[in-house]
Amino acid sequence: MKACILAVGSEMLTPFKVDTNSLAITERLNAIGFDVRVKAVVGDDVDEIARLVEGSIGWAELIIVTGGLGPTEDDVTREAVARVLDLPLDTDEAIVSSLRQRFATRGLNMPDNNRRQAMVPRGATVLENTAGSAPGLLLARGKTDLVLLPGPPREMTPMLDALIRDRLAQKAGGVALFRRVLKITGRPESEVDAVAQPVYSKWVNKGGGPLQAETPDAISISTTILAVLGQIELHLTAAARDRGAAKIALDRAVSELHGVLGPSVYSIDGRPLEAVVGEMLHERKLTISVAESCSGGLLTSRLTDVPGSSAYVDRGIVCYSNRAKIELLGVSEQLIRDQGGVSEPVAIAMAEGVAARSKTNVGIGVTGIAGPDGGTPEKPVGTVVVAVTVDGVTKCRTLKLFGGRDMVKFQSAQAAMNMLRLMLSG
Amino acid sequence: MKACILAVGSEMLTPFKVDTNSLAITERLNAIGFDVRVKAVVGDDVDEIARLVEGSIGWAELIIVTGGLGPTEDDVTREAVARVLDLPLDTDEAIVSSLRQRFATRGLNMPDNNRRQAMVPRGATVLENTAGSAPGLLLARGKTDLVLLPGPPREMTPMLDALIRDRLAQKAGGVALFRRVLKITGRPESEVDAVAQPVYSKWVNKGGGPLQAETPDAISISTTILAVLGQIELHLTAAARDRGAAKIALDRAVSELHGVLGPSVYSIDGRPLEAVVGEMLHERKLTISVAESCSGGLLTSRLTDVPGSSAYVDRGIVCYSNRAKIELLGVSEQLIRDQGGVSEPVAIAMAEGVAARSKTNVGIGVTGIAGPDGGTPEKPVGTVVVAVTVDGVTKCRTLKLFGGRDMVKFQSAQAAMNMLRLMLSG
Repeated sequence: MKACILAVGSEMLTPFKVDTNSLAITERLNAIGFDVRVKAVVGDDVDEIARLVEGSIGWAELIIVTGGLGPTEDDVTREAVARVLDLPLDTDEAIVSSLRQRFATRGLNMPDNNRRQAMVPRGATVLENTAGSAPGLLLARGKTDLVLLPGPPREMTPMLDALIRDRLAQKAGGVALFRRVLKITGRPESEVDAVAQPVYSKWVNKGGGPLQAETPDAISISTTILAVLGQIELHLTAAARDRGAAKIALDRAVSELHGVLGPSVYSIDGRPLEAVVGEMLHERKLTISVAESCSGGLLTSRLTDVPGSSAYVDRGIVCYSNRAKIELLGVSEQLIRDQGGVSEPVAIAMAEGVAARSKTNVGIGVTGIAGPDGGTPEKPVGTVVVAVTVDGVTKCRTLKLFGGRDMVKFQSAQAAMNMLRLMLSG
Repeated sequence: MKACILAVGSEMLTPFKVDTNSLAITERLNAIGFDVRVKAVVGDDVDEIARLVEGSIGWAELIIVTGGLGPTEDDVTREAVARVLDLPLDTDEAIVSSLRQRFATRGLNMPDNNRRQAMVPRGATVLENTAGSAPGLLLARGKTDLVLLPGPPREMTPMLDALIRDRLAQKAGGVALFRRVLKITGRPESEVDAVAQPVYSKWVNKGGGPLQAETPDAISISTTILAVLGQIELHLTAAARDRGAAKIALDRAVSELHGVLGPSVYSIDGRPLEAVVGEMLHERKLTISVAESCSGGLLTSRLTDVPGSSAYVDRGIVCYSNRAKIELLGVSEQLIRDQGGVSEPVAIAMAEGVAARSKTNVGIGVTGIAGPDGGTPEKPVGTVVVAVTVDGVTKCRTLKLFGGRDMVKFQSAQAAMNMLRLMLSG
């Protein structure tokens, strides 16, 4: 079943605020099998709210509108919806007296403009607000349920939960959406897509209308490919009536994809690379130390983002000066002079130096040119050398990375952790 | 002039991802006077993209569509727009050969599916992508400009900036929105709001509908307060036809707010704390070294996020083990045993130790309990000690921070940089 979420509020059209309500709503709707196809944000403007609601009635089985139910003249969601459905707005005296009582318990008189919150399009069902003054509203038009909820999350979520329990779960008819995320690094997006395409085209329901619940033997899985910084994500979604059947279908899909993509898949459960590498180190009782230059501490910071990482991270040395490389890692001054600070011999000396001095099993050395300055024709900005040593076996790679300083830092850290992961998994 | 932003990508319809591109786009469009009236997110679905584009052509003078220009079969923005405008899609051989060349410089053959990125609705203007492979597209239909931009921000923003310079600024031709951001740290949001309220209520246009351009003498300024991690932001917005008048009004507003908020304001031009501190170090020709434990490398990483930071950052030592503190910083084993690893004497020894050993002017020591484990009744999770030494003068503070591991790491780094900033500014 298709759903649409409409967030009303001019503040969400500024450069400073995003609509986050829709994430919580999406999670709840997905769990009972509604597929959110469109999300929109619109200002406190009766014409524009009406236009968007009208445009969604044709295709959505569920329209959730949040916000614009307050007592001020800015709050025009009720008016907009009444206009679209061509319904008069009546004052609900039961709401008025419950509002009055709400104010009275705080020793206040209800301001007159709060009467606006008691306006109800004729025939609407009033949804109780257990955490605030604005009641919600439910209207049905043909196959479409139109639900108006207050904007503040603490008022919106209990109201939505009650509505899901009392009505929407039945409407959706027991289908739910289940998700998996494969994370891949070290390969370009187009290559990953080319390799994965023949596999997932078999069970993908591609842009061909709504996800269908099928028999457990033929659960359809839709996929999305996403490239973020130095990693690719493949999102798999199955719609099914039966959690067990969905799990079997998704497990099979994940394992087929893993088969063709091979070791470039580092995570099939959404965990970030630092958590995957951390678990490998922890399980094998290995300790790690890091010597980083161009990644500037980001590699150590990502490793220590993982709870419990103090069990295997011994130290990180960020050597931004050549002097620091010499003093703290024992890299020879001559080597730096002969080979340059950004070179494979220096990266190897950093990795082996930090492991030897800290007596850890694993040592990583990262040196490179993060930019924007410091590039040369032979070693342009984005040239990064990564060396990893594990119990005396050292590997080294030179990378040419794209992007700004932050991208180069992130991808350097990503490449170093991935090299370690591949070495540890043999 | 009315604008609409449409973000394409199924991943932004999951409970895990929000569209953040629209914030940067809104900021840029506001700056030349476009008013963003609707933002929407839609999946990689040709029918749904087409429906939303079609619904906006009627009222928007500018429609910006981001995403869906990649090389995979998921990427259907070009097809959707060509369908709405009833235009054939031609292959642009100039784009094909520039894509081939892009791959060739990295020693790769262009995969065949990248030819999709060379598809152009007939009559469209091709927008150069200086940072990636997908070119943008511009189409005009009546009074409406329809602009297709790639999804990745580093590709999208330079393309949009070029289009604003070459076309959109002229098209808008009138009132513009001007903004300032004050950043404040070390005080709670409610306190900042209470102090600032009497000042900005004088010139705030509060919730009273859209911002109006007024005469230079009575420019109205609206404010938004926003709390993110360890910092508060006050956003001031003025709408005016005249850049000079807006500047005068905003300068006065910023200076009044700065006056009441005092030294807790660290930035009035949007710069992050690491850039502010970096400039202070650079101007005074001071060098810095860092010894961090619970912040796990994040402090050094943030300091090195600033281009040119290699001029003043000498090194960072992330000592996750007590042994590393002893070996690398010269902290005495006895001191750690007597006082505990998280204590003021140890933080001071770390700061002074790293400065002495690296011969830098400034040394910072951060030690604490980032959680989720490791807390005790006397030193619960979130206990963090920060010491800063500047040319022999050392200060130290113990903080009680809230939030998860990432929050504690961020706020520790924030507090350390802020202490240094306050010491440097006397």
